[in-house]
Amino acid sequence: MVTASGATALAAGLTAASAAPATALAPGTAPAAVPTTAPPPGTDPSAYTTVARAIVVHDENDTPLVPRYLQVVENGLPPGRGRATKRVLIVGAGPAGLLAADLLNRAGHDVLVIEANGNRVGGRVKTFRKGGHENGRQPFADPRQYAEAGAMRLPGSHPLLMALIRKYDLPRQEFLLVDVEVDNPTKKANRTWIHVNGVHMRKADYEQRPEVVNDTFGVPGPHRTKPASVILAEALEPARRLVRGKEGKALVDGWAEVLRRYGHWSMYRYLTEVAGLDTRTIDLVGTLQNLTSRLHLSFLHSFLSSALIDPGTTFWELKGGTAGLVDAMYAPVKGKVRLDRRAVRIERGGGRVRVHAVSEDCQTGRGGVTEVFEGDEAIITVPFSGLRHVAFDPPLSYGKRRAVTELHYDAATKVLLEFSQRWWEFTEEQWRVALDSIEDGLYAAYKAGRVRDGRHLGAHRSVKDLGVSVSDDLKHCFTAFRPAAPGREPAAAHVRGGGSASDNANRFMFFEHAHPMEGSDGGVMLASYSWSDDALKWDAYGDEERYLRALAGVQAVFGRRCEVFFTGKCKTQSWMRDPYAYGEASVLLPGQHTELFPDVPTSEGPLHFAGDHTSVKPAWIEGALESAVRTALAVHTG
Amino acid sequence: MVTASGATALAAGLTAASAAPATALAPGTAPAAVPTTAPPPGTDPSAYTTVARAIVVHDENDTPLVPRYLQVVENGLPPGRGRATKRVLIVGAGPAGLLAADLLNRAGHDVLVIEANGNRVGGRVKTFRKGGHENGRQPFADPRQYAEAGAMRLPGSHPLLMALIRKYDLPRQEFLLVDVEVDNPTKKANRTWIHVNGVHMRKADYEQRPEVVNDTFGVPGPHRTKPASVILAEALEPARRLVRGKEGKALVDGWAEVLRRYGHWSMYRYLTEVAGLDTRTIDLVGTLQNLTSRLHLSFLHSFLSSALIDPGTTFWELKGGTAGLVDAMYAPVKGKVRLDRRAVRIERGGGRVRVHAVSEDCQTGRGGVTEVFEGDEAIITVPFSGLRHVAFDPPLSYGKRRAVTELHYDAATKVLLEFSQRWWEFTEEQWRVALDSIEDGLYAAYKAGRVRDGRHLGAHRSVKDLGVSVSDDLKHCFTAFRPAAPGREPAAAHVRGGGSASDNANRFMFFEHAHPMEGSDGGVMLASYSWSDDALKWDAYGDEERYLRALAGVQAVFGRRCEVFFTGKCKTQSWMRDPYAYGEASVLLPGQHTELFPDVPTSEGPLHFAGDHTSVKPAWIEGALESAVRTALAVHTG
Repeated sequence: MVTASGATALAAGLTAASAAPATALAPGTAPAAVPTTAPPPGTDPSAYTTVARAIVVHDENDTPLVPRYLQVVENGLPPGRGRATKRVLIVGAGPAGLLAADLLNRAGHDVLVIEANGNRVGGRVKTFRKGGHENGRQPFADPRQYAEAGAMRLPGSHPLLMALIRKYDLPRQEFLLVDVEVDNPTKKANRTWIHVNGVHMRKADYEQRPEVVNDTFGVPGPHRTKPASVILAEALEPARRLVRGKEGKALVDGWAEVLRRYGHWSMYRYLTEVAGLDTRTIDLVGTLQNLTSRLHLSFLHSFLSSALIDPGTTFWELKGGTAGLVDAMYAPVKGKVRLDRRAVRIERGGGRVRVHAVSEDCQTGRGGVTEVFEGDEAIITVPFSGLRHVAFDPPLSYGKRRAVTELHYDAATKVLLEFSQRWWEFTEEQWRVALDSIEDGLYAAYKAGRVRDGRHLGAHRSVKDLGVSVSDDLKHCFTAFRPAAPGREPAAAHVRGGGSASDNANRFMFFEHAHPMEGSDGGVMLASYSWSDDALKWDAYGDEERYLRALAGVQAVFGRRCEVFFTGKCKTQSWMRDPYAYGEASVLLPGQHTELFPDVPTSEGPLHFAGDHTSVKPAWIEGALESAVRTALAVHTG
Repeated sequence: MVTASGATALAAGLTAASAAPATALAPGTAPAAVPTTAPPPGTDPSAYTTVARAIVVHDENDTPLVPRYLQVVENGLPPGRGRATKRVLIVGAGPAGLLAADLLNRAGHDVLVIEANGNRVGGRVKTFRKGGHENGRQPFADPRQYAEAGAMRLPGSHPLLMALIRKYDLPRQEFLLVDVEVDNPTKKANRTWIHVNGVHMRKADYEQRPEVVNDTFGVPGPHRTKPASVILAEALEPARRLVRGKEGKALVDGWAEVLRRYGHWSMYRYLTEVAGLDTRTIDLVGTLQNLTSRLHLSFLHSFLSSALIDPGTTFWELKGGTAGLVDAMYAPVKGKVRLDRRAVRIERGGGRVRVHAVSEDCQTGRGGVTEVFEGDEAIITVPFSGLRHVAFDPPLSYGKRRAVTELHYDAATKVLLEFSQRWWEFTEEQWRVALDSIEDGLYAAYKAGRVRDGRHLGAHRSVKDLGVSVSDDLKHCFTAFRPAAPGREPAAAHVRGGGSASDNANRFMFFEHAHPMEGSDGGVMLASYSWSDDALKWDAYGDEERYLRALAGVQAVFGRRCEVFFTGKCKTQSWMRDPYAYGEASVLLPGQHTELFPDVPTSEGPLHFAGDHTSVKPAWIEGALESAVRTALAVHTG
């Protein structure tokens, strides 16, 4: 039987975490004949080994690089062998840029970081919080509340990141991917919802009776009685077998074989042709394990996510928000960072690198500043999606240009709603007290599905106590957006942490900060977390247009009554629409790992390339840190 | 040898038009072994025939439907056999909704069209023009100028569309996909540019010496000396052979076989596994034929575009803009259209359909109107990407829900720049006169690449004559955005119409309205037309942030000097960011034609589904018109 934590891992809507443990696979259940095809003509066979080494972070002698990198993060760059001080330009002040800047600065180099954002550093680490990047504005009604626009959970198995957190002594707490008992937070509950095809079921119940959901998809044969996570784990087994339990050169060879067989395949092709899954089963797995929107993308991306993180890994979150990490990394180099300077042109010549930059207002030609920075070398951490709009003179190499042009970036969008009370922790009795305190009989009215208009939005006194109120206009408009099929309220969720999966547009919903903010009864819910096509549909709306839709989607899963705690304070983040991120991360297309990736991290003369996209851990801070150490070493020892 | 028109067809950056004629394929040059794989398990084999019939627009007896549809467009719905008048709600006032409304209205039904947009009808037919949707604002400095945000060329081979244009007697002129001689517009010139890997070459020259460009990609073997269009035509030949020259049932069977073999394949897979193309050759073809960004999408989409339109097809444009078609379609039903009403909820029950709608301001909860419309039946023309956010009560069928959730919509983005003179028609001598009239020696200064700042932006007196001027702020900022690698100016383009292909972020550039606006020396250039990932990179910028980048990209291809005619008046359209379109069109993913499409056009009780996405001609007006006739017939005769 699959464990509770395994069952919710991929369904969590996050980039990684393994699904069921491999032992879930009964011997012989993998399809007997595994079709393989020849790689595309002209593929360089050495690319498989190159990429395999990048996956496991080994050097060309198949020696693990991480111990060496850890040494650098903890103790700094190796003492110079009489090297000259270099003037180093670093483009981008995300985790990669900040770490590289700190390392090189401590080693005595003259560092300047050029950051496009006018009001913050951190890249895709971004916390909506009081005193944060929004120039003193408070994002939520309750000043104690904060929520993550970007990176939110930190795998304990990422050594460089964990070393940094130790080094800066940052307060952390467990990130609860699976919800726990409200009254006993050490006990996993798995009571969050699966809400698909009209079925409403707690995850723990689904593990016991998968057919209740699976039948609504028409899943045939032996898969009918298996949870989606187990079906997926079994499906991945033929690829997983190639790397399991291997080390050193054998591990590299195993990954090279995965790349040779499936590197140019989409997940869709793998699931149909290797795993032999039918359309209905793919619908099920895609919906619950958050694969649907990425089926056409590289098999490797989703496989790597599940293969590289041990199912037993603990995830952490930082108290006060992930931006606390960035604060700590920023402090030692603050004087070396120039905000509001977007690189638009990078020139090389005469032994110098020149970066032309513009201020934010200058991009619309409405005034502002242009500035040119000079250095001996540069570390460029800008996502390749963004580099596409940076002029290089002279041009980059053919391979790098193709990578900059083609590397696929995926969309990811979050919608965050604030509630004055953490209603998801309530029991039915707590609901009754809370609702009837607003209006006699309101509990029963909601229970019976009799509330149809929007007049109770934010009606609980705890909303008023926060000093906010929901306008009559908003209440009126919300009537049209109410959840799809009204009816009797589902049972109280009564959970802490964890995530729910739905087939509505919200897709995945999380209670991020499962540990209450001190002194606050409220909470911010990640009401919608979606990727790829699912995310682009939210992106077509402006920020303000997402909120009522997101609330209705939450209510479809958790019931209508939560609206009484809605403060009307919302935040949203579309990474694809973000003009400094251009996407959530480089989620590659079939074939791009072998065709493009070998040219991604390579230096071109004095230009070095860093950022999570130059690692095989896109979207993870760890990948950015690896790249920072790699490029800082290249500059320092080069 | 490939014809000039063939050579530029797909490179034109448009959704269709065949590449080289099939005769370009020397016998025996197609790869001998054509691998095919079994379709995914659980595929319904009848889906192949269903979709094949939709492709060729045949009914279930394999009889062509178009003659019947044409009859309806020309003469209206068949006389009722004593049928009752129905109250019909039509959601969306694009070409599908407007035609269906007109047909049903004339047949005596009681019609109401609900349109989300507050200021226009037409959907993805949208012209930036004086007196157009922008409430009297004039989009360009010259009031005579207009440009297309959406549909811009109308294939003569689309019978329903041509019938409508005849019916409304709309003035049209040829759309010049290939540029013509400036002094002799009846003669194709093919002098527009290919600008890739630092090579700058006229298309006609590339046809003669493909290796000059092909070598920069490292194209090996016999493809080295073939134009990209020929390589692509040869590559498509194994699939094309299955349908060429067939009619009736044999044609349907041929398409069913294409679907069975390649319906679940991406274009990337087809090009590597069937055509046997190597990475470098795919880079070449992708760059010049505008396939790169769609390689991971369905093989069928790109193949259909090239297979369904005869290479000899004439394309038309409407004088005054494509919106003229919409004006004509809108006029007879104007009183039946409610603008500023976005459908957010569709209910069925008690023999009635109820559509809940909100005004634009109501989407942000800041006031506005909610309204409920009732009818007997409804025709829903909203793109499925948009339907994802519409609540259905009761829910739609399983198949329709999957299609609404998964149908892939592609991004497409245009950036339009106005110039006070059509400099692309100039000879060198005309350039000399124009530039030296600004400042003595300026022609020579540009020629030698000595102009480095932005002070000459809009410097020509013809800009001032239009009553506009480029601000000093904009000139200053533009200095940072100037083209990548400055140098000597390329030769005068001296073309009329046609499009250029580049590997910079602009990708494809068009001179849309090749026929001068009466009385105007100026012109609007489609400075960037891009799709998919190429488009999403532009979409990360706000509108205003795209213009200076687009201008620099134009200059990289056509030379720096055109900036003197830049009026600073620009327009841009991102269809993916458009909250009423949610994408350019449904460009399906591998497998979606057979897995999802059969459930797309089917009616559900009183709900009918129309729009280009319900045809196999997404992005084409013709597909929308087919669906309008189909659903109007269903309502009228149902």
